[in-house]
Amino acid sequence: MKLARKDILGLQDVSREEITLILDTADSLKEISSRSIKKVPTLRGKTVINLFYEPSTRTRTSFEIAAKRLSADAINISPTTSSIAKGETLIDTARTLESMSPDIIIIRHSASGAPHILARLLSQSIINAGDGFHEHPTQALLDMLTIREKKGTIEGLTVAIVGDIAHSRVARSNIYGLITMGASVRVCGPALMMPRDIGRMGVDVHYDMEEAIRGVDVIMMLRIQFERHHNSRYPSTREYARSYCLNEAKITGAKKDVMVMHPGPINRGIEISPEVADGPYSVILDQVANGVAVRMALLYLLLPGEQL
Amino acid sequence: MKLARKDILGLQDVSREEITLILDTADSLKEISSRSIKKVPTLRGKTVINLFYEPSTRTRTSFEIAAKRLSADAINISPTTSSIAKGETLIDTARTLESMSPDIIIIRHSASGAPHILARLLSQSIINAGDGFHEHPTQALLDMLTIREKKGTIEGLTVAIVGDIAHSRVARSNIYGLITMGASVRVCGPALMMPRDIGRMGVDVHYDMEEAIRGVDVIMMLRIQFERHHNSRYPSTREYARSYCLNEAKITGAKKDVMVMHPGPINRGIEISPEVADGPYSVILDQVANGVAVRMALLYLLLPGEQL
Amino acid sequence: MKLARKDILGLQDVSREEITLILDTADSLKEISSRSIKKVPTLRGKTVINLFYEPSTRTRTSFEIAAKRLSADAINISPTTSSIAKGETLIDTARTLESMSPDIIIIRHSASGAPHILARLLSQSIINAGDGFHEHPTQALLDMLTIREKKGTIEGLTVAIVGDIAHSRVARSNIYGLITMGASVRVCGPALMMPRDIGRMGVDVHYDMEEAIRGVDVIMMLRIQFERHHNSRYPSTREYARSYCLNEAKITGAKKDVMVMHPGPINRGIEISPEVADGPYSVILDQVANGVAVRMALLYLLLPGEQL
Repeated sequence: MKLARKDILGLQDVSREEITLILDTADSLKEISSRSIKKVPTLRGKTVINLFYEPSTRTRTSFEIAAKRLSADAINISPTTSSIAKGETLIDTARTLESMSPDIIIIRHSASGAPHILARLLSQSIINAGDGFHEHPTQALLDMLTIREKKGTIEGLTVAIVGDIAHSRVARSNIYGLITMGASVRVCGPALMMPRDIGRMGVDVHYDMEEAIRGVDVIMMLRIQFERHHNSRYPSTREYARSYCLNEAKITGAKKDVMVMHPGPINRGIEISPEVADGPYSVILDQVANGVAVRMALLYLLLPGEQL
Repeated sequence: MKLARKDILGLQDVSREEITLILDTADSLKEISSRSIKKVPTLRGKTVINLFYEPSTRTRTSFEIAAKRLSADAINISPTTSSIAKGETLIDTARTLESMSPDIIIIRHSASGAPHILARLLSQSIINAGDGFHEHPTQALLDMLTIREKKGTIEGLTVAIVGDIAHSRVARSNIYGLITMGASVRVCGPALMMPRDIGRMGVDVHYDMEEAIRGVDVIMMLRIQFERHHNSRYPSTREYARSYCLNEAKITGAKKDVMVMHPGPINRGIEISPEVADGPYSVILDQVANGVAVRMALLYLLLPGEQL
Repeated sequence: MKLARKDILGLQDVSREEITLILDTADSLKEISSRSIKKVPTLRGKTVINLFYEPSTRTRTSFEIAAKRLSADAINISPTTSSIAKGETLIDTARTLESMSPDIIIIRHSASGAPHILARLLSQSIINAGDGFHEHPTQALLDMLTIREKKGTIEGLTVAIVGDIAHSRVARSNIYGLITMGASVRVCGPALMMPRDIGRMGVDVHYDMEEAIRGVDVIMMLRIQFERHHNSRYPSTREYARSYCLNEAKITGAKKDVMVMHPGPINRGIEISPEVADGPYSVILDQVANGVAVRMALLYLLLPGEQL
């Protein structure tokens, strides 16, 4: 079975059945990366373009590896080595790339909605690899794959998301996806880092971290995006860390078998202590491995090609 | 049949028979990009190096896609991530790359003549992907493929090229190629943007745009290269646009079935109005698609390999 | 036969048998690059990551070409287009990449010991592509392959290494490797460019170049790393060149069939005169060709895969 949609732009409008199909497919593709020959011919002759307007190691590399393990050709385009430097508009760049007949364009862009513009204009499939403060659906999908893998199901779990909720596309995509899959979601962070429309998102809002993580199954820490904050929204990183850094003392309030997640890259000692990041509760590296599997699944499900 | 030359450095010395062979081959290769599996094994085991000293989206991506659709291995080298940062001379870089046994080197360089230096020194085939203000032969070839596709032939057509003729490698290559193929060429732009040797190039020179495009079959607009002009050659972009921006009013003077071309990226509202760029006369996106086909043709024709 | 070690971090602890196996394998793989179809399926489905924290043309390209000629998938990661820009630690980057199941990580880093950290932490094979002022083992291996190819053997030869010994990872790796293979090594340079522990390295130390190269079989010139020296260690490049630039006058003191080597990129007229660099004694371009062969050999010998 394939997805009945052209694009993955966000999880706000993706159904439980679709998410389940993606996670099931990722589950079955994951095994390829542990083979000695990590390659199947499924997407041979397909062209995948990674159009990254923002720097990225893990997401771009994860998509590139996913494409290559399915035998697709991957082309990387990033602002510094492209005519984006010449001031071409996003739309003209998109139309130009479309004319080269790629099969799928993966885009990361600092402007919320950029992938949606491409999706409307182009006949090719578009995957949002992170747009501004909006969505980062493949991150949420790999997070959900990791939760399901460890907990058996997502339904009925309680997940606390902690950090700068307002400026986190990871938080937003996870909120949509987790609620769709039947989890209860708590968000926690300083008031200035809470989105204005949080009341309409179906989550419990907390400002105190100990309260927020009491009895939860999953704690999802967010990265403080220093590089995006031109003026500071919070007194100091030290003060932020005192209230919101997940350390071993705070974690005792959660369930005994709590999972700790982080999308990376980690600011050690700011949002998460090294002992927790590297400790037994942490599934941070499982998330990365599942990232390749989820992206392989999306490439497979969005593109026509050989059945697995 | 293959080309009987080692390199494509410019169109000044390329014969009508050679251009026809390239366009015919591109025509037959173009269909590969519309297949579900966009890949043929023709150049398997060949190594193509993209050596880009200037930033580029469309040209570099176009060559990379062309190489991969023919199953060649493509290696990208650009100044910012290379030892060019260490001040190595072009010649030493070229000799170094040669010793790694690539089959073809595609070079873009800000210095006119850089590809010619490589071609003389190296045993491998060299394709000029744009050198300074000199030539950009693959752009002119894709332009001619597009004209031939739409008009059936190039012979006997009248083509107006409008913009900064003096600093346009696209203009120069098109002038050589179009005249070789039997077209009449008019050039048009402000006097300061006209090359000194224009009188010897076999074209009609115009300074008034309405005159220049009267009755023509093809209008080829050039990009104003803001990024290359350190001191301004013209009062202002607004004034430039008033005289030379192709808009719907001006276009009425041309033939009813005139084609409008632009090598991209477009400065909308400066050299071309959005209505014209996106309108029915525009073949700008066909040019991009033909770029992949022409580059596949050149890689195929310059390299020994399986017959198609 | 394969190597019985996981990583190649330096040549200090690599045995004569291991070096011989690497050079023999490189010898037999070298022929692939002269075929019309330069590709064997040996490492199909393997993932090779080039993690380059410092800019490089020759080394990165050499590894990428080596990987592709063995049919491995090569992924390039460099600081400017990665989350390294976000301040992630080397260890977190390494762990993240590990979780994507590559088979081998090739790392260049400005910090001595960076590859060793990765090797200890990760299950994958690590190849040091240059770490700070420490080691650059693949350069020394390609140098030794070139010497063996031209001289038949390394044992019993006398090799002079000239330049900034203290800050040269090329010198250090060659000293270890050449001595292991039975050569006598002389080092030569200004006193301020001599490492403090040079007395314990088993080499003859010279400050006068004519003395140093008298009667030698091989002269290995080092690059003056202008880009790494923030404050000058030597009066001027002109004065440096007068004492240590290898020119035709100086070379007459060496053996008649002396070989001249340089790891590139060359500073012409500073450490080596153009006549010598391009002259009959020079094997600089053979070194580059052998670089691809040695890197193919290491990828082959470190990874399980089809026998050749």
